[in-house]
Amino acid sequence: MEFSWSPRDGEPALVDIGEDAALELALPILPASRARLLGPGDDAAVIAAPDGRFVVTGDTMIEGPDFRQEWTTPESFGWKLVATNLADIAAMGAEPVALVMSIAVPGDARASVLAEMARGMRDACLQLAPGCGIEGGDLARSSVITGAATAFGDLDGRAPVLRSGARPGDVVAVSGGLGLASRGLALLFERATEDGAPDEFALARLRAAASEDELAALDAQLWPRPPIADGVLAALAGATAMLDVSDGLALDASRIARASGVALALESARIEEAAGGAERCAEWSVERVLAGGEDHALLAAFPPDAALPGGFRAIGRVEAGSGLLVDGRPYAGPLGWDPFRP
Amino acid sequence: MEFSWSPRDGEPALVDIGEDAALELALPILPASRARLLGPGDDAAVIAAPDGRFVVTGDTMIEGPDFRQEWTTPESFGWKLVATNLADIAAMGAEPVALVMSIAVPGDARASVLAEMARGMRDACLQLAPGCGIEGGDLARSSVITGAATAFGDLDGRAPVLRSGARPGDVVAVSGGLGLASRGLALLFERATEDGAPDEFALARLRAAASEDELAALDAQLWPRPPIADGVLAALAGATAMLDVSDGLALDASRIARASGVALALESARIEEAAGGAERCAEWSVERVLAGGEDHALLAAFPPDAALPGGFRAIGRVEAGSGLLVDGRPYAGPLGWDPFRP
Repeated sequence: MEFSWSPRDGEPALVDIGEDAALELALPILPASRARLLGPGDDAAVIAAPDGRFVVTGDTMIEGPDFRQEWTTPESFGWKLVATNLADIAAMGAEPVALVMSIAVPGDARASVLAEMARGMRDACLQLAPGCGIEGGDLARSSVITGAATAFGDLDGRAPVLRSGARPGDVVAVSGGLGLASRGLALLFERATEDGAPDEFALARLRAAASEDELAALDAQLWPRPPIADGVLAALAGATAMLDVSDGLALDASRIARASGVALALESARIEEAAGGAERCAEWSVERVLAGGEDHALLAAFPPDAALPGGFRAIGRVEAGSGLLVDGRPYAGPLGWDPFRP
Repeated sequence: MEFSWSPRDGEPALVDIGEDAALELALPILPASRARLLGPGDDAAVIAAPDGRFVVTGDTMIEGPDFRQEWTTPESFGWKLVATNLADIAAMGAEPVALVMSIAVPGDARASVLAEMARGMRDACLQLAPGCGIEGGDLARSSVITGAATAFGDLDGRAPVLRSGARPGDVVAVSGGLGLASRGLALLFERATEDGAPDEFALARLRAAASEDELAALDAQLWPRPPIADGVLAALAGATAMLDVSDGLALDASRIARASGVALALESARIEEAAGGAERCAEWSVERVLAGGEDHALLAAFPPDAALPGGFRAIGRVEAGSGLLVDGRPYAGPLGWDPFRP
């Protein structure tokens, strides 16, 4: 089968036009950050950090374990790489201000993939975190399509919201989708393959026949929209702990419990509601929502008297003790994923 | 042949111990940065930027185009990934303060590779930029060993030294080795292969039989030591332009010329001297020094009356005009490398 990011209809490949020409197509598409003091073009960029600190995180997308090119256009690759990194910045209660990108692609990819990626990166910045932009990076060659992003955030003088501050009595709340991205991944493996292998035409057929719920699940997987602005809103509302739910609600809730030395007691009815209600959960059980990954929702604890900001919905309480409880019982279901334990 | 980063003598592989256990072996080895406000363990780190700005750069090392595992231990991989990124920070006239690392390795690599990489990273920080440390990152799985580093620097209130400030009359000077790393790479391809393929045992035999000069060339390629502290010294001495010589002296000198709108006039006798003298250059001509890559030397322009700081040695002058001159003639030799033009 044709390599999905291959040249089409006689288009040139990257090796045909070289690095400089490929970058000339892509760089003008990337938005500048509001915090830019010196942008791409020198050995390094210079970014403003007005409160004398910066928040930094890094996350990768690697062909194979993290995505399949048959299901992922260069635009959605660029979008998702930005979106997942912004979610980690938001989870600290910070406003994302900039990213740098290291991208590696095969030389026989079509010459336009970098510009297509740049459009996805631009759209994610503009739609999810206006003012945030791309301040540089690195282009390399690899037989495995690889994106490594580093994202920066501004705390505007506030303390970062850690995983370790939850206290008994706090409300546990979530903002963003739950279980949808994991359902989208399952749909891809169930219905977007040909002879068992990921296939872009099978994905096109799946989309054409999909219900609205199924389309939402596919979009949550391929074009995630984490609730970035809710990170700062949570900090301003007094969130005592927060993280980005990327490895499954159960595993990530357990991480807050462990870091804070408390128990998190969640209610399945509220999880079901937060995941889109009983109809959606009829097909997609609370158990699978708890174990699903790549939600990029924000999970936070708030003082009992705090008004929940933005899109946060309560799904439980912090209690004395340890570990994760669901409907009062210790959670013993599957946890999230370890890339080295397939 | 055995995969060089494979388990040896019944050692476990990464998939046998899982991500958490592998990180537990590696993370304690990594040094903390002096600028750490919040280190690894949450969704993001927080780093001090006392002058309200930070310098940021990113560079990758990818198996295949950038290194071969048969010639590169995990320690030297970690060392070189740190060293090359620190050089880009130094080239802005900044002091490196921290790095974040995205590392991807195959699941069948031996469980100890991450700890071995961490030792190389630690040693490079301690020896090349004391006070600089590792503040987080990401571990992923890939069939291609990949490292993407992002490095941060502090300008301590100074303006960054750009490529664009060289003025006619300035002295062009270089600090660090020239041509050695490129000679080391040639030695590897000429004398560290078996049936034409990179081979770790052939490298061991090469090392055992190598002259002092050849060992220096191998070390410059595998364990580069860019003159990091000379970046800040150059800025303090009034450097008008500076960059990291990574793609060959000729190409990088041309970049300063173009960015500054001037000509750079180099003298081959001084290049020869800077590259280690006539003896070394007898085997390794000035032409190859000009075209060689991965020097990670600092190339800078200084006002005519400036005392050259640290290890800087004059190799020419800035003149009105454009492009690169060598011994008064426009340079027409080979330039450096484009990863997409093999």
